[in-house]
Amino acid sequence: MREPEGVARVFDPMWAEIDAVGRDGSTGGYRRYAWSDADLTLRDWFRGEAARRSMEVEEDRNGNLWAWWLPRNWVGDPKGAFVTGSHLDSVPDGGAFDGPLGIVSAFTAVDLLRARGIEPAIPVAVVAFTDEEGARFGVACIGSQLSTGTLAPERALALRDGDGITLAEALVRAGRDPGALGADATLGERVGVFVELHVEQGRALDLVNRPLALASAIWPHGRWEFEFDGEANHAGATRLVDRHDPMLPFAATVRSARLEAAAREAVATFGKVLVAPNGTNAIPSRVRAWLDARAADQPTLDALVSRVAELARAHAGEEGVELAVRVESSTPIVDFPPGPRARLAAALLHLGDIPVIPTQAGHDAGILSDRVPTAMLFVRNPTGISHSPAEYAEPADCHTGAAALADIMAAWVS
Amino acid sequence: MREPEGVARVFDPMWAEIDAVGRDGSTGGYRRYAWSDADLTLRDWFRGEAARRSMEVEEDRNGNLWAWWLPRNWVGDPKGAFVTGSHLDSVPDGGAFDGPLGIVSAFTAVDLLRARGIEPAIPVAVVAFTDEEGARFGVACIGSQLSTGTLAPERALALRDGDGITLAEALVRAGRDPGALGADATLGERVGVFVELHVEQGRALDLVNRPLALASAIWPHGRWEFEFDGEANHAGATRLVDRHDPMLPFAATVRSARLEAAAREAVATFGKVLVAPNGTNAIPSRVRAWLDARAADQPTLDALVSRVAELARAHAGEEGVELAVRVESSTPIVDFPPGPRARLAAALLHLGDIPVIPTQAGHDAGILSDRVPTAMLFVRNPTGISHSPAEYAEPADCHTGAAALADIMAAWVS
Repeated sequence: MREPEGVARVFDPMWAEIDAVGRDGSTGGYRRYAWSDADLTLRDWFRGEAARRSMEVEEDRNGNLWAWWLPRNWVGDPKGAFVTGSHLDSVPDGGAFDGPLGIVSAFTAVDLLRARGIEPAIPVAVVAFTDEEGARFGVACIGSQLSTGTLAPERALALRDGDGITLAEALVRAGRDPGALGADATLGERVGVFVELHVEQGRALDLVNRPLALASAIWPHGRWEFEFDGEANHAGATRLVDRHDPMLPFAATVRSARLEAAAREAVATFGKVLVAPNGTNAIPSRVRAWLDARAADQPTLDALVSRVAELARAHAGEEGVELAVRVESSTPIVDFPPGPRARLAAALLHLGDIPVIPTQAGHDAGILSDRVPTAMLFVRNPTGISHSPAEYAEPADCHTGAAALADIMAAWVS
Repeated sequence: MREPEGVARVFDPMWAEIDAVGRDGSTGGYRRYAWSDADLTLRDWFRGEAARRSMEVEEDRNGNLWAWWLPRNWVGDPKGAFVTGSHLDSVPDGGAFDGPLGIVSAFTAVDLLRARGIEPAIPVAVVAFTDEEGARFGVACIGSQLSTGTLAPERALALRDGDGITLAEALVRAGRDPGALGADATLGERVGVFVELHVEQGRALDLVNRPLALASAIWPHGRWEFEFDGEANHAGATRLVDRHDPMLPFAATVRSARLEAAAREAVATFGKVLVAPNGTNAIPSRVRAWLDARAADQPTLDALVSRVAELARAHAGEEGVELAVRVESSTPIVDFPPGPRARLAAALLHLGDIPVIPTQAGHDAGILSDRVPTAMLFVRNPTGISHSPAEYAEPADCHTGAAALADIMAAWVS
């Protein structure tokens, strides 16, 4: 496919501007945690890009940034807007694309419309949602969840990061008002549609050799904390029969989770583990591990997690170890509405039949779909690797994605 | 058994004085890491106890503390001394007894001899070795290893703690001279025997219902780092078949280590694990885990570790994960010499036949046994729990131990 003209000239310099922000020198991965210095730098960058385009920036009560391009002579608050964007934060040692690609593509789309002389008939906004990854405070999509009212501000403010700093404290340090947090009553009225462009986080497009796809659904998913409580003891002098070592049932549960997920064509991952006291010559007193599980439908997910918890309990019992399982978050399936998807597909007819695929990853578009029409556009990821410094998308595919977003925007707002 | 008279009056107040030092309020465990504030406080306490007994304190080039009780009219450097003591530092959330029991008992023994009007014919020293547990810098018995020349000062000084602080930096912060570290050439001449009293870290004495034992040997033991290198990726969007998740082979290796140790009547423990990036929704890129393994003899230990490494390699291969195994420390068997042990047994004839047992735990006495005559005296641990806040010994057994140490000291120095 030939690259769309004029896109690289707009897209590439913006992409280069944020390349170094929050990037770790040793891993090459990004550490752009919510309200960290890196995050604040990216917010300033967002404001600068908006200003260069004469787009007024509004930071809403939950820290989400909205850059507005209003129709000439628009009076009063924006209504029924075409909103596009994504998030700026990252997982620990994340890649460059997850999040920022949607925002750089959104600003690029605005420029492409203006280059074509298109004036919007309805408001347009480029949006950056706060703390999508949940890397810092353990809960994903905090900004969008607060705005839709899914997450209560009291609960959000009390969340703590790894250093014990609450979200409330982090907000104060960043010069924000923790008392402002809460549901955004204007959301339904102001947003006509939210279209999120995102790098694909699997290999579906690579396997069919296509650059773009539309989202059908987001798998139901959640996070569960498994706490195995054993008995600390000397690693040398304690006979094996006298041990209550929580590492053993944890290890057995890792295997059980993999097998049970495979049997259900689902996914299950233990990616975060905290061991206490974590000394080389001490049998641990406690292993805390977080299960991330996702499946194509809710009954499958429920059955998977119940079964893993049941097996973990049996593994723990064999070692005389206590087990507590706590749900940390649980997100039901999101079926993206067919109406907006059909309008997007129609705007992209010149690209042929666009694949429609589900995603196993959570997104702000999923959170917002409770309240407003939503759609997602995925850009091919040739390796499928994401949440890793090795995450990648070809420049040509990124340009194709930004041009497609411009076509969608043009069709929606004209 | 009736409690020895007069011991509690000396032992108990000393024991109470250090009870709160470095104790964590939430776990109740001790965090007395080398050169930390808690460690420096305990060093001050040691100096105070020595001063109360008119014992001059010498801090040797490696930070080990020696409190001297010299024969009346002794001239020149001490030679052929009866040295007893242990260490003041702890593992993370360690117990109260591992280390300090030997030092409090040593000071108690000095008082008991003086109360009996015994004047030593040879020098007596109470010693506190530095950083026995290796909790802070990852290498155990740093103080005694430096003094015997087993550990090179350049290697020791470059060791880093969890915050990236080198031992050299920690020494400077504590007002010590890192350039002073090195082998103690006078050790062989000054020490006639080193007797270490220590809480038992297993249940051997409990199982035979006896308060004290002498050590026959220290099992050969070591620490090996297993580094599983996989590929970070999105925990939701990455198909199971596309994953290279290092958590899976690590988990399988935990199980293999337990089974292989059990088959050899050895012990193997994974007590320390570090996961990167340790994010809930990211497949880890890397799992580093430390194997602590010990066996009754060197061939058994070698076979155990080789087999676990071989199985780990196979587990890693199944997931397309790389494995590197590095030896972090390896300590050969210590057979305590029969001569000193016979003299200790003779001094304790009034207690009947003293059990002679091996220990699976490393000790400074093991390190010193390369250079000087050594012996160990164990005090019953009714649960066998050690390296844990729940570590315990009955006061009556502690008093019996201190009195026995006094009997040994009296017999040796008279």
